[in-house]
Amino acid sequence: MTVEEKLHNLGLALPLPSVPADVYRRARRVGNLVYVAGHTPNIDSRLQPEYVGVVGRNITPELAKKGAQLSGLNILAALKAEVGSLDKVKGFVQILGYVRSAPDFGGQPGVINGASELFVALYGEGGLAARMALGTNELPEGACVEICAIAEVEPD
Amino acid sequence: MTVEEKLHNLGLALPLPSVPADVYRRARRVGNLVYVAGHTPNIDSRLQPEYVGVVGRNITPELAKKGAQLSGLNILAALKAEVGSLDKVKGFVQILGYVRSAPDFGGQPGVINGASELFVALYGEGGLAARMALGTNELPEGACVEICAIAEVEPD
Amino acid sequence: MTVEEKLHNLGLALPLPSVPADVYRRARRVGNLVYVAGHTPNIDSRLQPEYVGVVGRNITPELAKKGAQLSGLNILAALKAEVGSLDKVKGFVQILGYVRSAPDFGGQPGVINGASELFVALYGEGGLAARMALGTNELPEGACVEICAIAEVEPD
Repeated sequence: MTVEEKLHNLGLALPLPSVPADVYRRARRVGNLVYVAGHTPNIDSRLQPEYVGVVGRNITPELAKKGAQLSGLNILAALKAEVGSLDKVKGFVQILGYVRSAPDFGGQPGVINGASELFVALYGEGGLAARMALGTNELPEGACVEICAIAEVEPD
Repeated sequence: MTVEEKLHNLGLALPLPSVPADVYRRARRVGNLVYVAGHTPNIDSRLQPEYVGVVGRNITPELAKKGAQLSGLNILAALKAEVGSLDKVKGFVQILGYVRSAPDFGGQPGVINGASELFVALYGEGGLAARMALGTNELPEGACVEICAIAEVEPD
Repeated sequence: MTVEEKLHNLGLALPLPSVPADVYRRARRVGNLVYVAGHTPNIDSRLQPEYVGVVGRNITPELAKKGAQLSGLNILAALKAEVGSLDKVKGFVQILGYVRSAPDFGGQPGVINGASELFVALYGEGGLAARMALGTNELPEGACVEICAIAEVEPD
């Protein structure tokens, strides 16, 4: 079963690869590592309005976790665009995940699990990255979560 | 003298390697680099309550610096678990250190020095990483500091 | 035309390479990657006072963008000191950019463009990194922006 078939079986679909509105690239490969830019819960490069807000204030951790999954789908779309197929991705090396947090909200790891559980569902052990989950007060356009990643891919 | 003997001479001991409560790995090796997950001031995977709080409000910079040292000890424990011995670690390439900061607290570098001074005591010049020290409003479980690292290790 | 000539034509000059006041290095090379420490809007290692503050409160996004450009100039100075010449830099792989943000300020990408536009002016496509732009409540010495980077350089 291909990774995209697994995604389909999970009831999930890849968004279009993000089109950077600013001065950066979606992803950049060096050797067998692909550095993926920070992604928020976008569909086809548009932040979805239900994910604008602050976790622990007007966004629940459960909703933010879905936002993290959607950020993860954008990371996958960026990887596919960079290397041609999700089947060439071996796994995730590092994930930095930021949750826009209300005072005293300390559940950032549970939110970022939304992306990590997706990666594990697709890649097993390979989906487990050395991860940093933490809070921040503000994110671009008011998004409740932003995630960047370094993935390992098959040699060309 | 081994690195662990140096640690002992400093009056310090390694905690047990962290057991991820969430969906990530403690460390992941790619070639001669080991990416280590974000670590807070834990002993044997439990955040120590004296390090819960906000630096500049109810945590002093001096205490937070000790918390950064303890985060650093967890990073070392993760490295030992990954490569077998601290003597196989050549040094630190990158450190990202986040300090949960009260309004107008700008002393983050001095806090993160708690980890960096430990690494330099053990590895000399090798302990000096390209470092980013900065503030954040919230961290997991309310920890006052969280640090992740990329270390360089001996080839197998 | 050399990269430094391009800089001169833009009316810009490199500051002196930063002298770390704390326990870290300005930059560290591993293979063909150079990890550069977090840099704030300094000239010759001194944070410029006009860049102390919070974007969206007492610092405008336009001024903060100039601060990001100055952070970028410090990153270039660090790279030159590490590899000898800016002409040996091929481009930027990853940029992490943090903007000290007032409540509901969500324009972090536009601020960090101050560095990225500089890198693109010098290196074209190579200046486009996989980038993460986000907010934070506090930065060292009250700076309004801090940026770290991973650059790719020519083999020795």
